[in-house]
Amino acid sequence: MKSNLLSDIHNPADLRLLSEAQLPEVAQELRDFIIDVVSVKEGHLGSSLGVIELTIALHYVFNTPEDLLVWDVGHQAYGHKILTERREIFHTNRQIDGISGFPKRSESIYDTFGVGHSSTSISAALGMAIASQLKGDFDKQHIAVIGDASIASGMAFEGLNHAGVTDANLLVILNDNAIGIDPSVGALKKYLTAVKQGKNPRQNNMIKSLNFDYSGPIDGHDLPTLIKELNRLKKIKGPKFLHIVTTKGKGLQQAEENQVKYHAPGKFDASTGEIHLKSEANLPPKYQDVFGLTILDLARKNKKIIGITPAMPSGSSLKFMMDEIPERAFDVGIAEQHAVTLAAGMATQGMIVYCTIYSTFLQRAYDQVIHDVALQNLPVIFCLDRAGLVGEDGATHHGVFDIAYLRAIPNMIIYAPINEIALQNILYTAQLGLNHPIAIRYPRGRGVLPNWEVENFGHYQKIIIGQASQLKSGTKTAVLSTGTIGNNVTLALSECNNSETIAHYDFPFIKPIDTNVLTTIFSSFENIITIEDGTVNGGFGSAILEFAASHNFKNKVTILGIPDTFIEHGTVNQLQQLCKIDVKSLINLFSNGTK
Amino acid sequence: MKSNLLSDIHNPADLRLLSEAQLPEVAQELRDFIIDVVSVKEGHLGSSLGVIELTIALHYVFNTPEDLLVWDVGHQAYGHKILTERREIFHTNRQIDGISGFPKRSESIYDTFGVGHSSTSISAALGMAIASQLKGDFDKQHIAVIGDASIASGMAFEGLNHAGVTDANLLVILNDNAIGIDPSVGALKKYLTAVKQGKNPRQNNMIKSLNFDYSGPIDGHDLPTLIKELNRLKKIKGPKFLHIVTTKGKGLQQAEENQVKYHAPGKFDASTGEIHLKSEANLPPKYQDVFGLTILDLARKNKKIIGITPAMPSGSSLKFMMDEIPERAFDVGIAEQHAVTLAAGMATQGMIVYCTIYSTFLQRAYDQVIHDVALQNLPVIFCLDRAGLVGEDGATHHGVFDIAYLRAIPNMIIYAPINEIALQNILYTAQLGLNHPIAIRYPRGRGVLPNWEVENFGHYQKIIIGQASQLKSGTKTAVLSTGTIGNNVTLALSECNNSETIAHYDFPFIKPIDTNVLTTIFSSFENIITIEDGTVNGGFGSAILEFAASHNFKNKVTILGIPDTFIEHGTVNQLQQLCKIDVKSLINLFSNGTK
Repeated sequence: MKSNLLSDIHNPADLRLLSEAQLPEVAQELRDFIIDVVSVKEGHLGSSLGVIELTIALHYVFNTPEDLLVWDVGHQAYGHKILTERREIFHTNRQIDGISGFPKRSESIYDTFGVGHSSTSISAALGMAIASQLKGDFDKQHIAVIGDASIASGMAFEGLNHAGVTDANLLVILNDNAIGIDPSVGALKKYLTAVKQGKNPRQNNMIKSLNFDYSGPIDGHDLPTLIKELNRLKKIKGPKFLHIVTTKGKGLQQAEENQVKYHAPGKFDASTGEIHLKSEANLPPKYQDVFGLTILDLARKNKKIIGITPAMPSGSSLKFMMDEIPERAFDVGIAEQHAVTLAAGMATQGMIVYCTIYSTFLQRAYDQVIHDVALQNLPVIFCLDRAGLVGEDGATHHGVFDIAYLRAIPNMIIYAPINEIALQNILYTAQLGLNHPIAIRYPRGRGVLPNWEVENFGHYQKIIIGQASQLKSGTKTAVLSTGTIGNNVTLALSECNNSETIAHYDFPFIKPIDTNVLTTIFSSFENIITIEDGTVNGGFGSAILEFAASHNFKNKVTILGIPDTFIEHGTVNQLQQLCKIDVKSLINLFSNGTK
Repeated sequence: MKSNLLSDIHNPADLRLLSEAQLPEVAQELRDFIIDVVSVKEGHLGSSLGVIELTIALHYVFNTPEDLLVWDVGHQAYGHKILTERREIFHTNRQIDGISGFPKRSESIYDTFGVGHSSTSISAALGMAIASQLKGDFDKQHIAVIGDASIASGMAFEGLNHAGVTDANLLVILNDNAIGIDPSVGALKKYLTAVKQGKNPRQNNMIKSLNFDYSGPIDGHDLPTLIKELNRLKKIKGPKFLHIVTTKGKGLQQAEENQVKYHAPGKFDASTGEIHLKSEANLPPKYQDVFGLTILDLARKNKKIIGITPAMPSGSSLKFMMDEIPERAFDVGIAEQHAVTLAAGMATQGMIVYCTIYSTFLQRAYDQVIHDVALQNLPVIFCLDRAGLVGEDGATHHGVFDIAYLRAIPNMIIYAPINEIALQNILYTAQLGLNHPIAIRYPRGRGVLPNWEVENFGHYQKIIIGQASQLKSGTKTAVLSTGTIGNNVTLALSECNNSETIAHYDFPFIKPIDTNVLTTIFSSFENIITIEDGTVNGGFGSAILEFAASHNFKNKVTILGIPDTFIEHGTVNQLQQLCKIDVKSLINLFSNGTK
């Protein structure tokens, strides 16, 4: 460990014992520490490197944890975690039973608000500030640190719009680095860029229009300036806004130069910054790439096809289409609500719109899916990446509620492909015209067909809506799976002694459900087991129960899936074990449960 | 019928045959027509009266339906409907099988986008404008008309933020009347007021910061000015913004003077404007008033209690508390996302927060309920007014999805009171400390206890979490109801010949469900019937099926509720008949189904 000053800092009180002159050295050590750990253990890198000085300045100037500090999203809070009693366990970051990759209330008193999804910090910090006022505590400080990508989301605007008419003790710090995971977009970004270039005099200030005391822009890597300004702002009552300019990845040359790649680079060489390339030969493709390549191919042939992503061009692989057909592929920023209704508006004009949103983020646009798309029965195609358990990002990011929340919506088709071929074919089928909206949910990570691109790409087959199929016959028990978790079933059955008794059915359509096949199944098998990587409350299994009840079938039905609890972080396999939907658990169940 | 010019206007093409000099007469006739019909048939009044001139000017200047006009929310579109082929059926407004109170695509080619919830118009119109561009139609006009309350919602900001960096042919018209249903709030409102008072020179313009061509403010009742300005804007390409100032209720003195009351005044005298007061003696209280009176009473005694409403102080009756304890009762504007996370922030500081949101609008904050409240297990108290079928507002406003979408969320308690006493007692119990978030869902309209306020108000009893109870014994069939629909069951049973065979259980807790009582029920009755005023997909009935499956009970279960289709407008009773959960349908079912 190179650390010298850092090793004596257990909490911010220790930091405050140092002289201001020592802080640049702390910054250097903190940067090195993060690089050392993340280079080996993986995680988010660039965001935290960009706010090292801000993190130190905040804990130096403010009296944390008495003063309340909320980090928006929380990617950038590694320095905060290390300075707040978690240096020695920081190497457990994002691992099962280790610390979370995001601030989390149950983990530390310094984590005042759990984050993960963007743009919540202003509302949360304002709530705290109003509470302090009501409790008669007028000196307590409440600070929201929010990036320029996050502040462009509607929710942040709602928070500012309210805060501006309160006299709450709120400091909003805009960490303006012109990038989220991908580069920021939109009119506000353009405006902020102009401000940074001195093109907007202070008197013409949007934030001031919202009744905030605005200061900045200042250099967010200049510790003396930051500390001086924070000390000044600490004495001002009411809502305040500080605009700082930082560089994402600051201090690691490659991370500064390639900010998208170094957002979460995987393992890399701590001294050179070089990313350790994994051999990708013989690996199955990522589902996001199956989507990205397929939509590009389809869009080349069909000029009505449009792609929309709210701020995830890289993560969704819509980038392939954005690069080649930019006029029909849109990154609208962190604006899921807008993305969905924009898609609906386009669909009214006959366009075929693929709106790709991570499952967990579609929660942000639930009303728009109901009210603007499904109610009007507009054939928008929702591509829900990161459905199911996502692994290390943990509880804030698992896409486990979508089946339940979408299944309640009339007119919706819900499809979960079992593999790359099924995903490609449903993407193809959707643009043939379904007359209904469809949600296609697929997981984070890789598929199961290493040769998919060579053997299958572009060989489209139309899928019949609502059809389930038998993957394996059996005599006594039928296992009904939906989506890629079906591959666990296949693997488990290949290792069961009694597999001849167990049939396996693939139900890619959760809605409409295949009542013909279900009638056969309930008429033929004593026991039914359903399995999904979504919540068991109201999910695919419940759909099967609803069918059975309405047809008065009395078979025994066992429902496997995500139990009614929030699942923390870990590898996907570890989390599947917790939920008893991993291959081993299924082997045990099938071997014991169906004797 | 006084109409003269109006009776010859079947569609906007007819309007365009008139000279500009004739338009004020059309405006007068249109106003009179709306007042005549709404005074008798009821509906939204003030909003439409306020945009009469704008409506005429838009259809006069633009080539509707070729040019695409989107009305935000749609309260204000009565004039639009009357000018677009629906004058003769306007008297069927909001009635079953009649026209909708909101623009609706399936109703007219002039209704380009279905609305009801606020702040969707910019996104939808932008989607249309981009689609037109891609189709090579560069002359088509796309117009979003949005009020100052709606534009303050985050979703509208997301739309502006995107539109500002496009060159799409979009005209956003801000109809600034300083009021939604209740007066507008927030920093943006304050800013707009300053603009109207000439305190913000045009060069310091927030909308310009978002890269829009801004014009205004102009008088929205001045037809020549409106027409001139719209003609000018029609020739400008790219995103444009026109700020007009109007008076809600314009032309009816009482409606101008009491804008909240005349938003939807019920029946009134068309000539004097006087509202026909219904005798409220001996009527049960509205559920919203049970909430409003109870939270005020509780808040007087407990200083930690806070109330939050997103723009529904009158509709939720939080107004009672706002009037007496303004420092702890907040109207945050149309900002459901912010409202929920603000509540979460307050809850972290030990405050007891009642966040009252209509069921249908909580769809806007689904992610915040999951990510900011439930995941952190913060004991926020959600009071979901207008749960279930809401009647005349129709498909956009029914609160029928909440049980399904909330039941999937871990840590949530879901409670549906059967009557005023139960609602009062759960509101009381919630502030005693539940250690979990709770959603309390109750319907629009009145309860069942005319003497509630005199006999029961303030007589609090603590409710045991998770407990169901038997309301009536029986021998063969058990009916399990949740919420106020249970009163239909009670009424039906009182008229059944075979009621001795039918037991009735009240399950106010949908989650956690009472497994003890369920075990008794499934062990004692052959047939189970569940009933709820929520969607049958994933709702209360599904919870009962999940219990039965996990306990291997084989009883016959029949699920009653809202079928998997969007329910249109009508009286609540008419809509209950459609869903077969009205008293008569239940009598039939109980009499025949359980013989």
